Amino acid sequence: MIYPREVKICEVVGRDGFQNEKGFIRTEDKIRIIDSLSETGVWKIEVTSFVSPKAVPQLRDAEEVMAALKRKDGVVYTCLVPNVKGAERALGCSVDELNVVISASGTHNLKNVGMQVEKSLENLKEIVSLSLQERVPVNGSVGTAFGCPFEGVVPRDRTLEMVERYLDMGVGSITLADTTGMANPVQVYGLLTEFKSRWPRVPVALHFHNTRGMGLANVLAGLQAGVDAYDSSLGGLGGCPFAPGATGNICTEDLVNMLHDMGVKTGVDLDMLIGVSLDLENIIGRTLPGQVIKAGKVTCLHRA
Amino acid sequence: MIYPREVKICEVVGRDGFQNEKGFIRTEDKIRIIDSLSETGVWKIEVTSFVSPKAVPQLRDAEEVMAALKRKDGVVYTCLVPNVKGAERALGCSVDELNVVISASGTHNLKNVGMQVEKSLENLKEIVSLSLQERVPVNGSVGTAFGCPFEGVVPRDRTLEMVERYLDMGVGSITLADTTGMANPVQVYGLLTEFKSRWPRVPVALHFHNTRGMGLANVLAGLQAGVDAYDSSLGGLGGCPFAPGATGNICTEDLVNMLHDMGVKTGVDLDMLIGVSLDLENIIGRTLPGQVIKAGKVTCLHRA
Repeated sequence: MIYPREVKICEVVGRDGFQNEKGFIRTEDKIRIIDSLSETGVWKIEVTSFVSPKAVPQLRDAEEVMAALKRKDGVVYTCLVPNVKGAERALGCSVDELNVVISASGTHNLKNVGMQVEKSLENLKEIVSLSLQERVPVNGSVGTAFGCPFEGVVPRDRTLEMVERYLDMGVGSITLADTTGMANPVQVYGLLTEFKSRWPRVPVALHFHNTRGMGLANVLAGLQAGVDAYDSSLGGLGGCPFAPGATGNICTEDLVNMLHDMGVKTGVDLDMLIGVSLDLENIIGRTLPGQVIKAGKVTCLHRA
Repeated sequence: MIYPREVKICEVVGRDGFQNEKGFIRTEDKIRIIDSLSETGVWKIEVTSFVSPKAVPQLRDAEEVMAALKRKDGVVYTCLVPNVKGAERALGCSVDELNVVISASGTHNLKNVGMQVEKSLENLKEIVSLSLQERVPVNGSVGTAFGCPFEGVVPRDRTLEMVERYLDMGVGSITLADTTGMANPVQVYGLLTEFKSRWPRVPVALHFHNTRGMGLANVLAGLQAGVDAYDSSLGGLGGCPFAPGATGNICTEDLVNMLHDMGVKTGVDLDMLIGVSLDLENIIGRTLPGQVIKAGKVTCLHRA
């Protein structure tokens, strides 16, 4: 079994987690969670999204959070931007990276941002040029890269075409997102093997949801295709509008725990991470989907 | 990525699921669930355990369930037996197979059945000889085959030694059980590759728990080692006494769904299986850990 011995963790609870909550998480709680995460050793933190406060009131405090967080050397602070206005706001907050997302599925993109994929790509050109002028790199995320809840399985070539368009525009790194948890390990291995063979030098991350329970199996397949960067959300916070009651993003502690058990280094202090997740559970006020916060690490033995 | 194209599912909700419930599941409900499962296309059903009614009152109706269920041609009805008395009771019910379990970890075996592993192996000889006299095959399960909540990681050689002892005694097939959800994919792949190389013709099944969220990742590793039989529990019913709040066995619908998405045949009608799981959820009266009962299959598309 061949796989990378070091893996980078991109923590997305600030965006994918908080935006899926019905209620508004207090700004000071968001900041405390982000600051605590900065100390755990994660590679990158997606702090928030510079989206319209009307569209996503949960993240209306994007500027405040970005301004107040304590930046830790070596941690990349990235933010999602849906349009040029969002990019301007994010660049005004000195983010380390802009993250953009367009769905590979036309129907999903239309439902998600109200425009055709081509129009989204057009807008993206302006964002990228604005960002690169300011020497801020852009990460291009392909949404519904494996499957779409309206269209079904997304053909491999469609996703790879989106990657090509991104790279042509000057996007520096790619994330393939299984937005609604439809990927399976064979598909992941196939697509990422192809990606790695076409663009061996382009940094690529995988963003999985655990909607159908196979999030970590998909990570295992990604690892075997050579992918060494993964998005995940603290405690597994998040959800899926198409699957009420199902889990959302894969859980960071569960991911880190699996990697460590496999002998893969992440640079993350898992005990500290579990502590932050328990803090988050208190803030949220309900049990989170993460398993390791309940079961503990394998090395936490019981008395006979 | 190399893996078997056909996989056999052994459904263990009747034993591992029902015995972990605090309350007693009504006998008629148990029978209805088992009978419904018989129609779904699963390979084997672990119906119950012939354990002392004092030790496990949840399964005090073992004889009644075995007597009342409608046997479906081609389905193997197996039962767990902890001792000679249990074996006699099970054989009296014309089971198709006896399943025995001894923990690879001495401490766990002592806590679980109150005796040393050697003593358990001694007792097993009598069970096997009794069973083979009646032409009923015995499946030997190795409990805590990967890790023990008291002793930690179980060395590979210890588990393989248990297998050797079982085979010497006339046990016809083996199940390696990750009793408290401590296995990781690298360990699974390593142990099962070794198993397959030492005993290429011995049927082996894997029994995973999702205690730390990596149950299906472990299945993926088992598949890649060539293992084509897996235990799982309807709805993910079950639990772990060492991890309150954590999930227990991997969920049958989630397992079958992953396999089908990967193009692996199981012979199981997933829609029918989901129906049985929803029935079980009604019986149990709380939300089960399974994800596919919430999210649906990937092919269940939404209207745009």
